Amino acid sequence: MAVAEAPDWAPEFAERLATDVAIVEGALESLLPAANLLGERPGLAPAMRYASLGGGKRLRAYLALEAAELFGAPSEGAERAAAAVECLHAYSLVHDDMPCMDDDDLRRGRPTVHRRWDEATAVLTGDALQTLAFEILADPRTHADGAVRAELCLGLARAAGAAGMVGGQALDIAAETAAQPLKLAEIERLQALKTGALIVFAAEAGAILGRADPAARAAIRGYAEALGRAFQIQDDVLDVSGDAEAAGKALRKDAAAGKATFVSLLGLEGARARAAELAAEAEATLAPFGARARPLALAARFTVARRT
Amino acid sequence: MAVAEAPDWAPEFAERLATDVAIVEGALESLLPAANLLGERPGLAPAMRYASLGGGKRLRAYLALEAAELFGAPSEGAERAAAAVECLHAYSLVHDDMPCMDDDDLRRGRPTVHRRWDEATAVLTGDALQTLAFEILADPRTHADGAVRAELCLGLARAAGAAGMVGGQALDIAAETAAQPLKLAEIERLQALKTGALIVFAAEAGAILGRADPAARAAIRGYAEALGRAFQIQDDVLDVSGDAEAAGKALRKDAAAGKATFVSLLGLEGARARAAELAAEAEATLAPFGARARPLALAARFTVARRT
Repeated sequence: MAVAEAPDWAPEFAERLATDVAIVEGALESLLPAANLLGERPGLAPAMRYASLGGGKRLRAYLALEAAELFGAPSEGAERAAAAVECLHAYSLVHDDMPCMDDDDLRRGRPTVHRRWDEATAVLTGDALQTLAFEILADPRTHADGAVRAELCLGLARAAGAAGMVGGQALDIAAETAAQPLKLAEIERLQALKTGALIVFAAEAGAILGRADPAARAAIRGYAEALGRAFQIQDDVLDVSGDAEAAGKALRKDAAAGKATFVSLLGLEGARARAAELAAEAEATLAPFGARARPLALAARFTVARRT
Repeated sequence: MAVAEAPDWAPEFAERLATDVAIVEGALESLLPAANLLGERPGLAPAMRYASLGGGKRLRAYLALEAAELFGAPSEGAERAAAAVECLHAYSLVHDDMPCMDDDDLRRGRPTVHRRWDEATAVLTGDALQTLAFEILADPRTHADGAVRAELCLGLARAAGAAGMVGGQALDIAAETAAQPLKLAEIERLQALKTGALIVFAAEAGAILGRADPAARAAIRGYAEALGRAFQIQDDVLDVSGDAEAAGKALRKDAAAGKATFVSLLGLEGARARAAELAAEAEATLAPFGARARPLALAARFTVARRT
């Protein structure tokens, strides 16, 4: 949550984010399995809770909750959708951290699931968290109208699958052994899949729950796409200029691996400028909603001002 | 498909199964991604196709298609539901075969995904196949009524997650290092989760699509539960008495690992008798549907007569 130079809107955003973090933590707390099925065995339920509770920026949950609020969606559905998106995100981190993928020992300042338990537990924990995301969305408590629930499931699946997050991760893995580093357009495409799709879905889920009209929904998508791109560039900026202890994960892995990043292609100042441009673009997309979209506008500013 | 002593109903079942296999293969062919997103890179889309096309008994697809037929569900939805269940099943096999889990080199007579490609591809392929299962069910082409689509997603999620298939697999992994072998009731519980839940959902999906009334749906569930239990016991029987070449996978791993199985607890003949009893029970549960349920009745007989 730390931001550079503490701009004047920072306390307002921090307060709003803290409220939303508490909401999504509460929702996850009640939606995650409390204990293993047969009680006495180690692993699955505790690892699911470990991987998804008590950490992370919760940016996706914030987008879902604030978009839902903007469109007047009922709060229970918004909380469930926010929790579902965070479950999906947590699953992707557990699998991506595995030795055969990014091989990370540390996540959110704690040992990764395969380090704390073992690889089998990491595979199953990720698998179960993905399933739980769909279970939460498909449940009648998320929305009274089945068509809305099905649309949420479809949107999440498209954001998460081979033409979304998993497809992006597969490209990222392939890029590590590619003959030459990716070009800018390829990195933008990769990142749009790997992290952009779920960020866009998070915001769109709020719009779906609030039955936003097509124009409003398109505006929210445009906002989240620009915010997602700013987020990814800022991630690369922080990977070279950030503090690993504050980040709670290993940094500078991309440079060490010789991978092309927004920073290697645009330079540090060029990347910062591009991120700021995209954040401003995201904020401008919210103009039709006026002052009521301020929480979403602050998220765009935060995306590039954050230090972790 | 080979059955012992070729009972007189065997050709009838084989023909029906061959028809359903062709149907689900056709559906999967069109639903799986044809190629990778950016064309030039190895891995994800080919591995998804490799893991889910051209192999397997397709018992789950058969149950979904025949239950849908029994209740007069539209064929496109039935085909999509059958394909979704097979995607989910294929995902579970890809992950379960990984070195950190059951560590198998052979599946359906071919190298497992992590042997043919690598572990990262196996993780991502399984992940994307799970997502695809939900994407297929949530799509409006599966059923015009969103509430039906959401119910299918919810049913699949419950069958697949921590209180279903993944929970069962976690128990199975834990059992390998447990101080003492599992007791009969524990194995039954484990198997009901690990394989029973998805078998029951497969049949129930057909009933959901055909808007079966609660009594009929309960009968289909009862049928599939008994069939699933017979199937699991027969799997243990074939693990000690079967032919690995015909099975297309390694056998006798459980005995080698000192794991309790239905055969170690009931004896080979006792296990065979119990499986036959459960298959008869499954068939009896279909009585209310009369002759129209014959394809499902034959599946119960096949479950215990099969040699692979």
